[in-house]
Amino acid sequence: MIGRLNHVAIAVPDLEAASAQYRDALGAVVGPAVPQPEHGVTTVFVLLPNTKIEFLQPLGADSPIQGFLAKNPSGGIHHVCYEVEDIDEASRRLVAAGARVLGDGAPKIGAHDKPVLFLHPKDFSGHLIELEQA
Amino acid sequence: MIGRLNHVAIAVPDLEAASAQYRDALGAVVGPAVPQPEHGVTTVFVLLPNTKIEFLQPLGADSPIQGFLAKNPSGGIHHVCYEVEDIDEASRRLVAAGARVLGDGAPKIGAHDKPVLFLHPKDFSGHLIELEQA
Repeated sequence: MIGRLNHVAIAVPDLEAASAQYRDALGAVVGPAVPQPEHGVTTVFVLLPNTKIEFLQPLGADSPIQGFLAKNPSGGIHHVCYEVEDIDEASRRLVAAGARVLGDGAPKIGAHDKPVLFLHPKDFSGHLIELEQA
Repeated sequence: MIGRLNHVAIAVPDLEAASAQYRDALGAVVGPAVPQPEHGVTTVFVLLPNTKIEFLQPLGADSPIQGFLAKNPSGGIHHVCYEVEDIDEASRRLVAAGARVLGDGAPKIGAHDKPVLFLHPKDFSGHLIELEQA
């Protein structure tokens, strides 16, 4: 069911520092910072030949990554995002398999303007998985 | 300098459970468990169209991921691995940029029989980066 790895999201306390590390030390192609107030984050994409890295910095008072950064003040790998063809079918299959979809269980429009959902880390060996309709 | 994302490594306490989650709930192609006693881990690869996920389970008494699992008993995303063309050149460039290579600084032969090195998470926004010569 899952297809490509769309991105790996890394929560960082300082987007400019993270961007400079990847651009200058690692020689990667790093995009601009894009504030996404409706999602509580500012994002920067690192473009790799086969996928993307997405840096997330909290934006506003109720950022969904604030708790993660409180536990990991230097930053850390926050989630992986896999593409699926049909997010509703994916949701049904996962719930039938006993997995929990975060929130009310319905896909939402994500930061890339596509339907997404998040799966409970306790059902997937402690890591957070986002599914995005490709 | 960095090229493809070679893999995302996820430390797990139970390889069979993690494999079943990805095979059955997520419908992914999951390979066999491969003990790597010289690296202190047993690995399982999940094959995605554009990259791989590598599950790591501790093997033996001195596994390099034992400490991570002690802090994250359910498991968690352990590192990302980027490909480079020339690991020695990459090492020189990174050290010149002020980044610290873990261990004695020299590339080692990794779990895929290719030269690898690991970069200090404190120099890269809290996440562990492996570089592998492609």
